[in-house]
Amino acid sequence: MDDRATQAYHLLEETLHARNVDVAAVRTALKQQEIETPSWGYADSGTRFGVFPQSGAAVTIAEKLADAAQVHKFTGIAPLVATHVLWDLPDDAAVESVPALAASLGVRIGSINPNVFQDREYWMGSFGNRNPAARRKAVDHCLRSVEIGKQLKSGVLTLWFADGTDYPGQSDFRERKRWFQDCLHEVYAAMPDGMTMLVEYKPFEPGLYHTDIADWGMSYVFCRNLGDRARVLVDLGHHLPGTNIEHIVAFLLDEQLLGGFHFNNRKYADDDVMVGSINPYEFFLIYNELVKEELNPRGNPKVEYMVDQGFNTKKKIPGMIQTVLMIQRTYAKALCVDRVRLAEAMGNHDVVAAEQCLLDAFNVDVEPLLRRVRAEMDVPEDPLAAFLSSCYQTGIERDRGIRTGAGGLGQ
Amino acid sequence: MDDRATQAYHLLEETLHARNVDVAAVRTALKQQEIETPSWGYADSGTRFGVFPQSGAAVTIAEKLADAAQVHKFTGIAPLVATHVLWDLPDDAAVESVPALAASLGVRIGSINPNVFQDREYWMGSFGNRNPAARRKAVDHCLRSVEIGKQLKSGVLTLWFADGTDYPGQSDFRERKRWFQDCLHEVYAAMPDGMTMLVEYKPFEPGLYHTDIADWGMSYVFCRNLGDRARVLVDLGHHLPGTNIEHIVAFLLDEQLLGGFHFNNRKYADDDVMVGSINPYEFFLIYNELVKEELNPRGNPKVEYMVDQGFNTKKKIPGMIQTVLMIQRTYAKALCVDRVRLAEAMGNHDVVAAEQCLLDAFNVDVEPLLRRVRAEMDVPEDPLAAFLSSCYQTGIERDRGIRTGAGGLGQ
Amino acid sequence: MDDRATQAYHLLEETLHARNVDVAAVRTALKQQEIETPSWGYADSGTRFGVFPQSGAAVTIAEKLADAAQVHKFTGIAPLVATHVLWDLPDDAAVESVPALAASLGVRIGSINPNVFQDREYWMGSFGNRNPAARRKAVDHCLRSVEIGKQLKSGVLTLWFADGTDYPGQSDFRERKRWFQDCLHEVYAAMPDGMTMLVEYKPFEPGLYHTDIADWGMSYVFCRNLGDRARVLVDLGHHLPGTNIEHIVAFLLDEQLLGGFHFNNRKYADDDVMVGSINPYEFFLIYNELVKEELNPRGNPKVEYMVDQGFNTKKKIPGMIQTVLMIQRTYAKALCVDRVRLAEAMGNHDVVAAEQCLLDAFNVDVEPLLRRVRAEMDVPEDPLAAFLSSCYQTGIERDRGIRTGAGGLGQ
Amino acid sequence: MDDRATQAYHLLEETLHARNVDVAAVRTALKQQEIETPSWGYADSGTRFGVFPQSGAAVTIAEKLADAAQVHKFTGIAPLVATHVLWDLPDDAAVESVPALAASLGVRIGSINPNVFQDREYWMGSFGNRNPAARRKAVDHCLRSVEIGKQLKSGVLTLWFADGTDYPGQSDFRERKRWFQDCLHEVYAAMPDGMTMLVEYKPFEPGLYHTDIADWGMSYVFCRNLGDRARVLVDLGHHLPGTNIEHIVAFLLDEQLLGGFHFNNRKYADDDVMVGSINPYEFFLIYNELVKEELNPRGNPKVEYMVDQGFNTKKKIPGMIQTVLMIQRTYAKALCVDRVRLAEAMGNHDVVAAEQCLLDAFNVDVEPLLRRVRAEMDVPEDPLAAFLSSCYQTGIERDRGIRTGAGGLGQ
Repeated sequence: MDDRATQAYHLLEETLHARNVDVAAVRTALKQQEIETPSWGYADSGTRFGVFPQSGAAVTIAEKLADAAQVHKFTGIAPLVATHVLWDLPDDAAVESVPALAASLGVRIGSINPNVFQDREYWMGSFGNRNPAARRKAVDHCLRSVEIGKQLKSGVLTLWFADGTDYPGQSDFRERKRWFQDCLHEVYAAMPDGMTMLVEYKPFEPGLYHTDIADWGMSYVFCRNLGDRARVLVDLGHHLPGTNIEHIVAFLLDEQLLGGFHFNNRKYADDDVMVGSINPYEFFLIYNELVKEELNPRGNPKVEYMVDQGFNTKKKIPGMIQTVLMIQRTYAKALCVDRVRLAEAMGNHDVVAAEQCLLDAFNVDVEPLLRRVRAEMDVPEDPLAAFLSSCYQTGIERDRGIRTGAGGLGQ
Repeated sequence: MDDRATQAYHLLEETLHARNVDVAAVRTALKQQEIETPSWGYADSGTRFGVFPQSGAAVTIAEKLADAAQVHKFTGIAPLVATHVLWDLPDDAAVESVPALAASLGVRIGSINPNVFQDREYWMGSFGNRNPAARRKAVDHCLRSVEIGKQLKSGVLTLWFADGTDYPGQSDFRERKRWFQDCLHEVYAAMPDGMTMLVEYKPFEPGLYHTDIADWGMSYVFCRNLGDRARVLVDLGHHLPGTNIEHIVAFLLDEQLLGGFHFNNRKYADDDVMVGSINPYEFFLIYNELVKEELNPRGNPKVEYMVDQGFNTKKKIPGMIQTVLMIQRTYAKALCVDRVRLAEAMGNHDVVAAEQCLLDAFNVDVEPLLRRVRAEMDVPEDPLAAFLSSCYQTGIERDRGIRTGAGGLGQ
Repeated sequence: MDDRATQAYHLLEETLHARNVDVAAVRTALKQQEIETPSWGYADSGTRFGVFPQSGAAVTIAEKLADAAQVHKFTGIAPLVATHVLWDLPDDAAVESVPALAASLGVRIGSINPNVFQDREYWMGSFGNRNPAARRKAVDHCLRSVEIGKQLKSGVLTLWFADGTDYPGQSDFRERKRWFQDCLHEVYAAMPDGMTMLVEYKPFEPGLYHTDIADWGMSYVFCRNLGDRARVLVDLGHHLPGTNIEHIVAFLLDEQLLGGFHFNNRKYADDDVMVGSINPYEFFLIYNELVKEELNPRGNPKVEYMVDQGFNTKKKIPGMIQTVLMIQRTYAKALCVDRVRLAEAMGNHDVVAAEQCLLDAFNVDVEPLLRRVRAEMDVPEDPLAAFLSSCYQTGIERDRGIRTGAGGLGQ
Repeated sequence: MDDRATQAYHLLEETLHARNVDVAAVRTALKQQEIETPSWGYADSGTRFGVFPQSGAAVTIAEKLADAAQVHKFTGIAPLVATHVLWDLPDDAAVESVPALAASLGVRIGSINPNVFQDREYWMGSFGNRNPAARRKAVDHCLRSVEIGKQLKSGVLTLWFADGTDYPGQSDFRERKRWFQDCLHEVYAAMPDGMTMLVEYKPFEPGLYHTDIADWGMSYVFCRNLGDRARVLVDLGHHLPGTNIEHIVAFLLDEQLLGGFHFNNRKYADDDVMVGSINPYEFFLIYNELVKEELNPRGNPKVEYMVDQGFNTKKKIPGMIQTVLMIQRTYAKALCVDRVRLAEAMGNHDVVAAEQCLLDAFNVDVEPLLRRVRAEMDVPEDPLAAFLSSCYQTGIERDRGIRTGAGGLGQ
């Protein structure tokens, strides 16, 4: 850190001390942060109107891991990579090759993501399909995913279902609920002790009239029935307009049932744009609830922080680094809330002062603090600039060019 | 019924038989339908921009019951009246007078509705208020409501909470959740065996940032923790845009946790306009789930059908009769679905045919059937016209004139 | 028509006469109805999560026209087919072949739809692209579309733009607006006298942060600046939740600027499900405004009625017939409103009676009337059943099988 | 400014210089900022569920002006006060007293706001009322408002209409549009040369089915037809979920038709909570468009910046100071965008870099700059703290106590 950065850091430190923030603890927390990026985030993606393949986009699992490793190399806090069974691990050879590959790149395998929506058998659903053969195939794929998880020493099985219907009358809600329950039970029963099942919810798409696990409440009910290693996965884009997500997060934490996140943001539908890019304050308020649980734990198990975004018009690795920095910044701000003054303001029903505590933390420029933390972690103080001045991006654009075949939503 | 009506009925009967509908059973079901109208629906209401008091609007509980009795007299299916403790039953004398009054008018007391949002102590909440004195007051009012329920032989305690906050930081979600839990438990414990607690949810308003019981999932969790006489109340207007309500209804039915409804409709926010007036097909799809439970019961206890609407620009009694007829018509249509053909279409994944089964039932004109049922129940075949040609409405407009003081949202 | 149908028709006729409906005029209006179905509606479609190609789906323009001709053959009111330049008319030979082909099948070419979103040059936009070469290419494609329109004697050029951005800062709203204006002017200037330009709007997708023509107001401003042969195209799915579409339709009619419709419906986003399948009453209210203009014209030119839907889980031809019947039924109901009584109720500020006039028309079962009209038009009284008992669908499934290559969103 | 503040300012100045920001120009712009606060923001407000009157809330126009003067005294940038004809200026005496009163308090009268929604005659509308007498009364009130505006030397007439309907069929959209047009023309014709008419839009409430001026497009059409002194007023809370407001702002600026703002924020409906309290980044993006017009003017006339919020649970004067500071901060951030780098990034289609320019400006802590500006303007560096340590608030709570009668939505 140069003189100006040091001076800025000390000024910030003084400000934070005056706000009752334990800056040393904040730095420790920031150094322990771990974010999981998705293998498919390095491959092409698009909308139903088309996919524009990007030069240098990853196709193979080796490329995806290499790209993810770049994100970790420059940020220091993204050591985990989510893998997608169908797209990344089509056969035993792929599975076997992954651990050494990941280790050599300095990253670890995070959650295992089965895919039960792409094959033709799933046209009318997977766990909610009236046809027992389709349900069988879907369960078998998930059971295989559990096995892969064991092999890759992954502790997290992430389940998202595209099941739903397009029209009233197309199917029966209750029958489907029971099929779902049965299938989930079979998969849950096969999980080893250390494995957690995360159950994702989503209000619509690809089903245009209903989806079988439409909101956190449905996810909650399925998890409660399964057992204590099943927990709710909150994808930030999977909510109807107006939803108070931080309230749901607090509620699930209190129920000890918050399993993890898919970070992204939405303006209209499930847009999968960068987390915090539409409403960074909402993202801060969500982190504020997570920090409250950290400071005052009531027993919710470890939360998984996963990115799930598409990069349709952004370059993928720079976009992912920008994302990781957005998450880091937001966590830092949430750690900088003056909780003494906030408690006092709440106690006095002083709404102006209480809100201002949050706004003050949100408005603080935490960059000097983050630069200090990065220096201590031995990563570049400005990770995005550092990545861009490395020759990695130009190298992959030159060497890989424009291709297809990565699976994913841009196949 | 005149010749034309009879002819129309017979034509309809033939059509329905061809659709595998047991018309006799439909008529029986329609004759057993019971709808509860709210005492406050006969009093003035408005928006935050003002209330325009109507000539003839009810002020006293006697007037409200008398007006409700008119709705029952002309429709035959609205024998229950919801009472609001604060507005209708301010003292013991009022409570004591009600049973005889109701009996003399041919109606019965339905649900008991405490009010824990209007007194100044509730400015910052009731069950979720940081101040224990406010929580105490709110619990005591609910305990008194339980006692009133016993006295009035009402089996249903309906709880809606205005609790919420306007700004981030104003309060703590988790603390409030626990205060809610404790208060609910105390009230639940005081309920006699035959009494059911219905817990309503609402995503916003009057709180503008959060409400403590924001969606069906939160209501569900509270009910599950309370015991098997607590169930979820679905107010049709209390959902975010895009919510698939019929899916929630089916899910709750399968969980045996659907307690009842507040019927109304929304276009934008919690508009409290006439049920079915914005989307009558959605209302039909909700009834379709209820009929499926009736035809193939899986154990959900009796569901309460309550109206909760405002009549800001409509005359109240005609508006309520129109509402009751809308409900009756919708129930009738849901009873007329060809369930044989629907099951077949579903089984074949024939989405066009399956949807068409529902559309055909929705498009059928059930008026001839309803006229027959009304004739058999000895009420007018056209209840709205019959009411309007009675002199009741002109009588109350002349005798009561424009007044205030009814409590309600038009106080 | 058999005896029962005749009897039902006469009963309905009596009812409608009592409601001041000129039934003969209604029948005439229904026989003049003309709906345009889209060539791409007979080809595969899907979501960003995948496309499940259907057996028998059309690939070539010849197949698409043949399938559309089936819809017209069985309904009598779908003689027009929208063509998509890129997918249907890739070269001069294709264009030259179309008129004779269409004529031989008994259909006509409707609107011409350029495509300026699929080629790689349009990744960052077409008319709103900062790169002049991309704008040039897009304008040239539209100019060619005008030429094709002349050749095919089509009077309608339909413009939809996928232009937009994913993130704040990505581009400049005002610069783009001016580029759009310039490009639109060039295309408009090239149109022959009898040609109308329809300008479509859409709030989002594929752009996830903004779209350049986001709402009817923006479309209106562009059209006003262009001249009197540019008019607004209302796609029913392109609105934010809560939009009162019938109000927009009435407003545009009064401004004489309503050009036409893309019929479909939405529950959440731009779902492209069957028109009327989510809220048939809203569709009726839209038609009610159109009928008011027909009965009491104030100068809006001819309106184009085009279907734009996807059939992801429905078979395409049955789905399209079902759609056309839904439109026919809704138009018929709007024609059956008792406008005498409605005007009286409005005049009295009698909201109950006024609303009931619309509800009564919506609730009437117009099927007997439609059967009569169909009989008079020499098409089957039950078009869907008649089509299904023809061997066309099984024939194409057998002969065409599952293929790809149709262009469209399922390419 | 103490040493630390000076040091922080200099660090910030260096950062901004490196970002191509002309800091001196930014300071000048900030010193010229003028915000208008509403007289009714100092009086009680509430929701349809009740109003909780606050101790010290203003009732008379003298109190409202005195409270507004406090906000200006401590911030230096809120010299204007919007007045409400009905609530503030009931008679000629009130009007005559205001100029001297305002001058003595150091504030000026801003916009004049007629009220055509509260009297019983407006139950079924004002300019859109079928009854000519109601329209006449409404126009006359607006004409009187024009006269008051002349007397008070106000240059702005702000028109908001509560007109709308609750149910389909209740009224006719087109007739109402024409009544609106005629009434607006009469008022416009009466305005003196220097007066501007601002026409507000709103999608719903108090009308629950439709409002007559529902969106910016309708407001635009009315203004275009009136003449060049009628312009669109954008109330930030009057949009449907998902609306891209900054896009509308940019579009209106380019059309030279943006008249002004009502600042507030929404999470669900028209919540009237503090501007920037739900999504401060969206507010920044709106200001970003305004700054672009300032830096590169294309002819839009002066924009009015008005606050329109309710303070249901916040104390009013502290809440208003907090609001003014939020606006100041947001304007400052928008002035700090690196426009050189942004233009470059846009030119390269580098979406990551372009977005990052906006994020960097948003994330900068402008407090040191604002403290410097305040010091130069001779107002307290921390206006909220300074106000709270004055005895004004405790004084009014003691002297005024809890009262009613201010008019407003909390009457």
